[in-house]
Amino acid sequence: MIKHSNYGKSRVRLVKVEREGDRHHFREVTVHIQFTGDYDECYIRGDNSRILPTDTMKNTVYALARTAPLGAIEDFGKRLCLHFLDNNPHLHSVRVELEQAHWSRLGKHSFQRGTEVRTASVVDGKSFNSGLKDLILLNTTDSSFEGYVRDPYTTLKEARDRIMGTSVEASWLYAGTNQDFDTLWQAIRSRLVEVFAGHVSPSVQSTLYAMGEAVLADFPCVEEISLSLPNKHCLLVNLEPFGLDNPNEVFLPVDEPHGLIEATLSREHS
Amino acid sequence: MIKHSNYGKSRVRLVKVEREGDRHHFREVTVHIQFTGDYDECYIRGDNSRILPTDTMKNTVYALARTAPLGAIEDFGKRLCLHFLDNNPHLHSVRVELEQAHWSRLGKHSFQRGTEVRTASVVDGKSFNSGLKDLILLNTTDSSFEGYVRDPYTTLKEARDRIMGTSVEASWLYAGTNQDFDTLWQAIRSRLVEVFAGHVSPSVQSTLYAMGEAVLADFPCVEEISLSLPNKHCLLVNLEPFGLDNPNEVFLPVDEPHGLIEATLSREHS
Amino acid sequence: MIKHSNYGKSRVRLVKVEREGDRHHFREVTVHIQFTGDYDECYIRGDNSRILPTDTMKNTVYALARTAPLGAIEDFGKRLCLHFLDNNPHLHSVRVELEQAHWSRLGKHSFQRGTEVRTASVVDGKSFNSGLKDLILLNTTDSSFEGYVRDPYTTLKEARDRIMGTSVEASWLYAGTNQDFDTLWQAIRSRLVEVFAGHVSPSVQSTLYAMGEAVLADFPCVEEISLSLPNKHCLLVNLEPFGLDNPNEVFLPVDEPHGLIEATLSREHS
Amino acid sequence: MIKHSNYGKSRVRLVKVEREGDRHHFREVTVHIQFTGDYDECYIRGDNSRILPTDTMKNTVYALARTAPLGAIEDFGKRLCLHFLDNNPHLHSVRVELEQAHWSRLGKHSFQRGTEVRTASVVDGKSFNSGLKDLILLNTTDSSFEGYVRDPYTTLKEARDRIMGTSVEASWLYAGTNQDFDTLWQAIRSRLVEVFAGHVSPSVQSTLYAMGEAVLADFPCVEEISLSLPNKHCLLVNLEPFGLDNPNEVFLPVDEPHGLIEATLSREHS
Repeated sequence: MIKHSNYGKSRVRLVKVEREGDRHHFREVTVHIQFTGDYDECYIRGDNSRILPTDTMKNTVYALARTAPLGAIEDFGKRLCLHFLDNNPHLHSVRVELEQAHWSRLGKHSFQRGTEVRTASVVDGKSFNSGLKDLILLNTTDSSFEGYVRDPYTTLKEARDRIMGTSVEASWLYAGTNQDFDTLWQAIRSRLVEVFAGHVSPSVQSTLYAMGEAVLADFPCVEEISLSLPNKHCLLVNLEPFGLDNPNEVFLPVDEPHGLIEATLSREHS
Repeated sequence: MIKHSNYGKSRVRLVKVEREGDRHHFREVTVHIQFTGDYDECYIRGDNSRILPTDTMKNTVYALARTAPLGAIEDFGKRLCLHFLDNNPHLHSVRVELEQAHWSRLGKHSFQRGTEVRTASVVDGKSFNSGLKDLILLNTTDSSFEGYVRDPYTTLKEARDRIMGTSVEASWLYAGTNQDFDTLWQAIRSRLVEVFAGHVSPSVQSTLYAMGEAVLADFPCVEEISLSLPNKHCLLVNLEPFGLDNPNEVFLPVDEPHGLIEATLSREHS
Repeated sequence: MIKHSNYGKSRVRLVKVEREGDRHHFREVTVHIQFTGDYDECYIRGDNSRILPTDTMKNTVYALARTAPLGAIEDFGKRLCLHFLDNNPHLHSVRVELEQAHWSRLGKHSFQRGTEVRTASVVDGKSFNSGLKDLILLNTTDSSFEGYVRDPYTTLKEARDRIMGTSVEASWLYAGTNQDFDTLWQAIRSRLVEVFAGHVSPSVQSTLYAMGEAVLADFPCVEEISLSLPNKHCLLVNLEPFGLDNPNEVFLPVDEPHGLIEATLSREHS
Repeated sequence: MIKHSNYGKSRVRLVKVEREGDRHHFREVTVHIQFTGDYDECYIRGDNSRILPTDTMKNTVYALARTAPLGAIEDFGKRLCLHFLDNNPHLHSVRVELEQAHWSRLGKHSFQRGTEVRTASVVDGKSFNSGLKDLILLNTTDSSFEGYVRDPYTTLKEARDRIMGTSVEASWLYAGTNQDFDTLWQAIRSRLVEVFAGHVSPSVQSTLYAMGEAVLADFPCVEEISLSLPNKHCLLVNLEPFGLDNPNEVFLPVDEPHGLIEATLSREHS
């Protein structure tokens, strides 16, 4: 029996240019759509009569992008959800995930792309997660790691002063459905960066908690926040064989293996 | 409050050579370890006294690889789970994910690597999922897609005979914990490929179902199977502007956007 | 002044299905086209009147794929070259580079893709380089590295018996223009693999030379061969801190840094 | 016979932290080293006695990073070249390529990484190319493409107003060897961006030329500049099937295929 199924279209890439006179706004968004519903017959009997082709989902993205201002990606995700729910009787739930590339303005109609990605996940037009990924941050000091468990396989030396680098992935759930998503996203992103940069860290776990707590404390509209922080290690290079010391100056950055620290923090309800 | 947390080490890469006389066995495995447990104090108070460093997790992979034959990746994952559970009183649950690269034998001590990846996920040494990914398959015929829902945004033409290509990702849960994992993996992989190649397909959904059903039917030890099949579209090129027909010969393969069809099939229990 | 310029289309992806009754042939090729010629005015004055749009180059790939059997990628590259040279008076030289994905047959119309890529570079339909890349090979023994230069920065230990792994990239120039490219490619590829697997290697340099020499010795139609062999290191893990030995069994494979050994061998002419 | 050979170490990753009181400077550089010289015996006879191991090259990067301030990557590349030339009698020429990741300052010891990469290539400590890559720029207007060659395979419509996006790769050769590389790099990078953003473009070729010419005109120390501009197409989506117009608002960005426009501009010497 089919315990669960979903189908949809991934990596639908959209660019929209919106113009205020000669000042242009440029947005690049990638959309992923997943349908869940009463589709077992399609799988079991090869009956396509309930299937909205994923090609049509793709077309819908472009059509709906044209018929109204795009708005925040959360708002656009909501419009897509409601459209699909209204028009597909066998659809029970639709998840729309969106990724917006970071383009910074260079002039009235010129832009440069960065690494950072703004994300959103909208379910049924009613549940809104916003977030970010590929926000690559690093502190050269104020990070230590000491006092941990030692066992026969421990070789790590305690570090009083180490580099802490990470690629932040965050996603937060809003309490309500009617937010000024653009303004909030900027404010929450800034808060995350500010806490990371200012934290005196005894562990990645502690920094993660400080970041999440700050968002919950400062943004009552955030119900819950998940953070995923890979520990992008910078290993101190041993220069002793060459008769040199290394007073925390020369490091080898490695991508693998990496620590991975993840947690979801939620507001306590009394 | 912390609703959930986990921490661990990702992308621990291991090669092990095992020798039967001058016939060598070569295995390349990447290991991901995630701990869940009583670690809230580490996050909240920066108290590291319960934390086993992720560096030690990495060392443990290499040490345990040495002290016994590696066995199937599922068996190695089990050994890692049991080791960590035995030695970390604050650890409630440990998940070990493993990926084995596909190396085919060229000679007694020579090997060539392929794309396909064998995967496993072992939880607490008691729950075993095995699987594969990056198994890229394609049929040039016996695939159609017709009779689907049409709406104002539909432009897709019905296809009586199309190419169907996909990159299979599969994961199945074993009923018991004591299997001959290597033999089963080979047999299940072969069955998946065989069904894909032989299926006359009215939709990706139908092919996915046939693949999953065949595994459940033929392997009583499989409790449940999840399949994820991206529809790697090959678009028929329109050659009419050049005065040419295109009788299903010339195609444009595209990576994005792609359909994504996923389902979990489980055994019905009466 | 413009010292050099070229323009063209990259990553034109083509699939062609050719049928012998119910036995299908499936080919996936990516084409890169670069024009060099009398185009300075386009750059300097923005005069487009000599420019064949790169979009038209792309269309030409699909049209020419339809109007004749594809043949070997070298033959298809030649047809493209001649077409462009015949129709573009300002074109002095055209380079067509082609990459063919490796699909192995599973049945009459079913295929599986591997990693290996067959390559070709055709200039003006007269000069033919064939080659391959992403051929990932490894020997678990018969490789050593000893007797090298030692200086104050040397820490590497001599290895009597090490793993040697690489991702072969090779390209060879044919003497003539009218070859059975498919048959030759298979034979040369096999020879490269055979020499790699059988060589008792004092260095990657030596193995590279043996591979190249074997091709020049056995294939008189090959004028010159270039090989690029990254040394994909497998580092012996130090298990002493854990009270364990490591008799060449447990390794850490790393992607970076890697040695890179390259050479071009040519036939000596008296 | 060996027509050409080179060997060396690629992807040597280095981080260096330099401190002015509590203000930290953070640099991440990847180094590639290639030796050319009198090494034929190593290939032909497996004689390693002239080979400096690539592992030692790697160690040298870390040691030399410690023994002096890093300086501009061009300066560091020069130090590496001179070290290797001084100590390896069989070395004829050494090429050091360096890539510096872009980290922007967030605070006294906090940084964020961007996409852009600064590059340099230093040969024998005497020839200096500087450059950049992954500088992703886009104009939403002031770009057209008209008046080009039409042939039977042309389907492209002339565009009066199109989006022009690219990922700039540039490399320029300095006339002298003793430059203030950091200051010049910033100034040349800014000039390239400024010209791109301000150019009214009839073709990518024309924009490329304007960028290169501006650098040659404003920086007498630049002898020659090479630019590679992929045309990252944004395709206007056809919304007519849905009864909608599309006044240059909704686009599909594609990575493949892409136009690729390249040229080297050099100073004319009388």
